[in-house]
Amino acid sequence: MSRGTDQVEGRRAVLELLRARRRRVRTVWVSGDDLAEIEAEARAARVKVQRVPRDQLDGRARTEASQGVIATADPVREADIDELLAEPRAFLVALDGVTDPGNLGAVMRTAEAAGATGIVVPRHRAARITPVVTKAAAGAVEHLPIASVSGIPSALERARRADVWTVGLDSNGDTELFDLAVADQPLVLVLGAEGRGLSKLARARCDVVASIPMHGAIESLNVAAAAALACYEIARRRQ
Amino acid sequence: MSRGTDQVEGRRAVLELLRARRRRVRTVWVSGDDLAEIEAEARAARVKVQRVPRDQLDGRARTEASQGVIATADPVREADIDELLAEPRAFLVALDGVTDPGNLGAVMRTAEAAGATGIVVPRHRAARITPVVTKAAAGAVEHLPIASVSGIPSALERARRADVWTVGLDSNGDTELFDLAVADQPLVLVLGAEGRGLSKLARARCDVVASIPMHGAIESLNVAAAAALACYEIARRRQ
Repeated sequence: MSRGTDQVEGRRAVLELLRARRRRVRTVWVSGDDLAEIEAEARAARVKVQRVPRDQLDGRARTEASQGVIATADPVREADIDELLAEPRAFLVALDGVTDPGNLGAVMRTAEAAGATGIVVPRHRAARITPVVTKAAAGAVEHLPIASVSGIPSALERARRADVWTVGLDSNGDTELFDLAVADQPLVLVLGAEGRGLSKLARARCDVVASIPMHGAIESLNVAAAAALACYEIARRRQ
Repeated sequence: MSRGTDQVEGRRAVLELLRARRRRVRTVWVSGDDLAEIEAEARAARVKVQRVPRDQLDGRARTEASQGVIATADPVREADIDELLAEPRAFLVALDGVTDPGNLGAVMRTAEAAGATGIVVPRHRAARITPVVTKAAAGAVEHLPIASVSGIPSALERARRADVWTVGLDSNGDTELFDLAVADQPLVLVLGAEGRGLSKLARARCDVVASIPMHGAIESLNVAAAAALACYEIARRRQ
């Protein structure tokens, strides 16, 4: 696979790739039954679908379950952080060191569903937009602008200068998520790494750090679950 | 591994296994550094920790990343569905055909954190409490009672007879999750399978079917994200 081509796997991810029409789709390979929806969408997008034997499809797959569908397409176009910050109803989600590709994709899927206007990822340290991320995102990468930045702390500094609130999510917050006063303002929600939480520097740059109340015995939520709660709390306040 | 022993992998899962003291821990194998917390907890629980070479630990592992810690213990004790339904503040989560073990574990972790009082799983069709489930649950299986039933629809019928509300979660609901009137009553939250949603029969047995509003272009949330939103909405109403 050349650097100039992305591989997209899984039914929902390929369906949204074909529907969104944001990037050129080069190939769709399918195998198995129950693919009428994919085939119809490819026809509408004038993309040729090639039927291949299952073992050939599995040989190309880079995720654990391609669900019988793999496509190649032009890479996702990068968004500009300053343009995302300038939107009057900016609702960005910044991932400060989330490295697990399944979690990264899951956060994107939920953020898109909650009406987020963009994702901010660090260019180097975090998980890249691999086929595993794209599949877990279930099509969200086609719709949600993604800006990669040299570091999350400097992106938060830019947010401050653009009068955009920065809200960190961490187990030791100063406020409870469900009491968050700034949820209906332009904001960047900052999520920390699995296990370690927010980095010191990112935390110091946040205007507010919010926590999710824990009502049981275990100590923390998975980052994707925490992201779902925070994104929908923001969505609920904005309605 | 005999039927009478469970394998538990991953730092959080083993820590909570040792802390909860609900079942006898037979062995803890560790490899690598940064294990002081596990070792202290094992000492407190009077369980011997065996240091083994990394390849030996990896050879025993049944999940993708054991994080250098594997334990064996007596199986999780089964809870009784009628006892769970009889609790005055019952908050049960029933999984109607959720088969992905990572999702099953993730739902348990969030449900426990939101204060759920039990999990209901079908005895046959769904994912069993495997090491992958236990690891994704991050210790929740040690604290949250789990009842397995012959089928979710018949469990919902039992809930009705016990005056416990049954609330399904589905993309075509009659009400929006955030308007759910019965959230502070004793209830069973019913989650459907990945992709297909609630089964017809389970849906027909629910008093209310609630939907999560979708504000973007993609059509649905992952079951673990949907569960997080529903469980925390119930928790918020009960505070």
